[in-house]
Amino acid sequence: MVPKITPPSVDYARWYTDIVQAAELAAYAPVKGCMVIRPYGYALWENVQQALDQRFKATGHKNAYFPLFIPESFMKKEAEHVEGFSPELAVVTHGGGKRLEEPLIVRPTSETIINAMFAQWIQSYRDLPLLINQWCNVVRWELRTRLFLRTTEFLWQEGHTAHASAEEAMAETYRMLDIYRDFAENEAAIPVIPGRKSESEKFAGAVESYAIEAMMGNKWALQAGTSHFLGQNFAKAFDIQFLSKDNQLEYVWQTSWGVSTRMIGAIVMVHGDDQGLRLPPRLAPIQVVVVPIWKNDEERAQVMAVVEGIMSELGQDLRCHLDDRPEVSPGFKFNDWEMRGVPLRIELGPKDVQKSHAVLVRRDLPRRQNKSTASLDTLLPEVRNLLDAIQSSLYTQALRFREENTFQPATYEELQEAVSKGFALAYWCGSADCEATIKEETKATIRCIPLQQDGKPGPCVCCCKEAHEKAIFARAF
Amino acid sequence: MVPKITPPSVDYARWYTDIVQAAELAAYAPVKGCMVIRPYGYALWENVQQALDQRFKATGHKNAYFPLFIPESFMKKEAEHVEGFSPELAVVTHGGGKRLEEPLIVRPTSETIINAMFAQWIQSYRDLPLLINQWCNVVRWELRTRLFLRTTEFLWQEGHTAHASAEEAMAETYRMLDIYRDFAENEAAIPVIPGRKSESEKFAGAVESYAIEAMMGNKWALQAGTSHFLGQNFAKAFDIQFLSKDNQLEYVWQTSWGVSTRMIGAIVMVHGDDQGLRLPPRLAPIQVVVVPIWKNDEERAQVMAVVEGIMSELGQDLRCHLDDRPEVSPGFKFNDWEMRGVPLRIELGPKDVQKSHAVLVRRDLPRRQNKSTASLDTLLPEVRNLLDAIQSSLYTQALRFREENTFQPATYEELQEAVSKGFALAYWCGSADCEATIKEETKATIRCIPLQQDGKPGPCVCCCKEAHEKAIFARAF
Repeated sequence: MVPKITPPSVDYARWYTDIVQAAELAAYAPVKGCMVIRPYGYALWENVQQALDQRFKATGHKNAYFPLFIPESFMKKEAEHVEGFSPELAVVTHGGGKRLEEPLIVRPTSETIINAMFAQWIQSYRDLPLLINQWCNVVRWELRTRLFLRTTEFLWQEGHTAHASAEEAMAETYRMLDIYRDFAENEAAIPVIPGRKSESEKFAGAVESYAIEAMMGNKWALQAGTSHFLGQNFAKAFDIQFLSKDNQLEYVWQTSWGVSTRMIGAIVMVHGDDQGLRLPPRLAPIQVVVVPIWKNDEERAQVMAVVEGIMSELGQDLRCHLDDRPEVSPGFKFNDWEMRGVPLRIELGPKDVQKSHAVLVRRDLPRRQNKSTASLDTLLPEVRNLLDAIQSSLYTQALRFREENTFQPATYEELQEAVSKGFALAYWCGSADCEATIKEETKATIRCIPLQQDGKPGPCVCCCKEAHEKAIFARAF
Repeated sequence: MVPKITPPSVDYARWYTDIVQAAELAAYAPVKGCMVIRPYGYALWENVQQALDQRFKATGHKNAYFPLFIPESFMKKEAEHVEGFSPELAVVTHGGGKRLEEPLIVRPTSETIINAMFAQWIQSYRDLPLLINQWCNVVRWELRTRLFLRTTEFLWQEGHTAHASAEEAMAETYRMLDIYRDFAENEAAIPVIPGRKSESEKFAGAVESYAIEAMMGNKWALQAGTSHFLGQNFAKAFDIQFLSKDNQLEYVWQTSWGVSTRMIGAIVMVHGDDQGLRLPPRLAPIQVVVVPIWKNDEERAQVMAVVEGIMSELGQDLRCHLDDRPEVSPGFKFNDWEMRGVPLRIELGPKDVQKSHAVLVRRDLPRRQNKSTASLDTLLPEVRNLLDAIQSSLYTQALRFREENTFQPATYEELQEAVSKGFALAYWCGSADCEATIKEETKATIRCIPLQQDGKPGPCVCCCKEAHEKAIFARAF
């Protein structure tokens, strides 16, 4: 039996956990706070990795690998950084049967160890920009675990760059934020709002943090990627200096940026529905599932002959799966693959063979509106078109949902109501007091100050003082 | 200046370390026992990964990800396993600012944590075979570090499979060993000897271990990949049972197998020479480097116009790099890229432009025998042919070197001499005493008992008792 999924309207958190486990994306590990990423979830992550990695390499970044362990003393070199991460650290105190002289931190992020190396590698302006990315695991101690969203260990990529000027580093910060936006929108079909973080929400050690924020199915926000302008904070802590073109010794300007397996959680929560997952075709491990239908051996032979032709034709440039399990019914298979979010299903029975067509069923549309037939002669182009249509339909649905649930409150009362229903885009004067008041009274935080602003001033939604920017306020994961 | 490389004939260990650092494959990290894999080394690793991963997926394996941390109690469930790994463990005792109730081991290998999950996932024969692979970092405490060959943390893949019968698991063990052999020979251009490990050299917890062994440039052996038949050892320790077709509850039969970043060390040591690295084209991060030559701006414009055409033509399906650095001479570039092992160099100056040809320089042949010219009209096919020729020439050179340095001693005296000069293929009776004697007196260990045997018995090279198999004895990394 296909496992039961709690309806999202009944309990969104349980719906999420049910779906992640039923679709076999991930499982709780027998290690506190940790998860196992199962093959179906990992295949999705591999597709995320590939789409991002291509973009990083196309913009001149190179992958490298730095140690998992960071000497405790390194963590302490940048004051804000250590303060921000101290409560979350896992510490190795024993190695090879002996107590270590200096404890080793299991990396929560790699600014410190990477910058220790940058200090050795960077001598002259000719060594800049240095554009490095690392795919790895990181550990941040968590008491409350949610698969993909909050686990003690997670997988991510972390970019670390060094530049000769603040302008160049700032341009890089924006460039990577835009790569994340492009990835989210065009690969994950997730509309996002790129913006600046408030002081209280920025990365420990950054001058400015930027993020892409997305609306989940329960109208809460999820930060789906971050890009930080580090200024010269780490350069000074790790003494990364270079000889400029004018023969001056200067500190480098830096950035760091990351996307993690959280992105999988975002994909689940943006697109999922009562039936289960809905995966965007460009990232789906299985883009097309083929379900043959028969009642007896004769029908089976007839149908399978056609299905094998379809598999070899489609399989050449699409990720296809043939579900020929004899022990379960077609109906079971339909539900099973719907739950697993496969974008397109092809059904083929003896009558279809006679008519030389196949039935195509889209996962992005409601049942009863999602079926069509295609001639076997034109199946491949039809399937390609449908996958493109599904990709953009998932994006459009998510965008409409966000727009319908984004409000522009002018007063504090309107803000209170807005954040209980979705995103609030409201004037904010920039004061930490207003931010704290709103957080305390509504549980909503400033997700970001969108890069796109209309430029007109207005009264702060909290204190009514003149404000020059609007911020997105929302409940967040 | 291109960094000085100690000649291998003077000090092989220093030659190796010099080359790995000068070619910027890796660097020592400021964390004891750890290394940084630099972009050039990591690009090589990515090509290794891709070539292996394709082979794993083509044989039905799926990637997944399991936790970095293993509860101490899990490690202790398989008696031989814990005994083998205990001295090498890194232990996390504190997390989130508190002492942990149960210490966590940083995985040295993942049999225990993966099998704890397998026990949950496997119920019936329909769940078998379960074919899982994981790409990850592992930690084994090391006092003496050698970049890529022996570091506290390293990267690898570890395959873990479960089967319904011993025969199937055994077939899998051999299948993966053969995939490693195929990869080593056809991608890394490294001839290897697939064979069984002796009892003293097998994996802690395995019934039988198999490995591919290669001869390095100093005539020592390096184990370049291992495949283990685990029998039911872990199945019993973790209670992994399935309901068979006959409705019987049975323990699964298992395998595990791995290749690590050590493979990079093997590539360096098998192919490298006095000038530096020599990389096999199929894995080289840069397959072709183009060095334009000019004396003045006019020549530069003339040459660069042609070079740009070459780059866009070759760049479409080859990994090409244009070295147009103005600050260093062509001679410097030649040495630099030779040291970095780029398989093929294209030189192009004003005279070449006039003759409408380019100079091609192979890295696999000695200087003075390695140059040819090719018409610009047929450059792409010529380059492709040369890269194929270089790939097979590197393999042939390594094979000849191994054959010339492999001896078949009949007596103990001959064995003693043989292992001081290279590999010894000699009859071994199978006794641990003979193995230990030889190791003590010659420092040579049994690298493997080759799968390929001529089937005739003969006297053990140590005790003269009748032996049915020959073993490879050698000094090893």
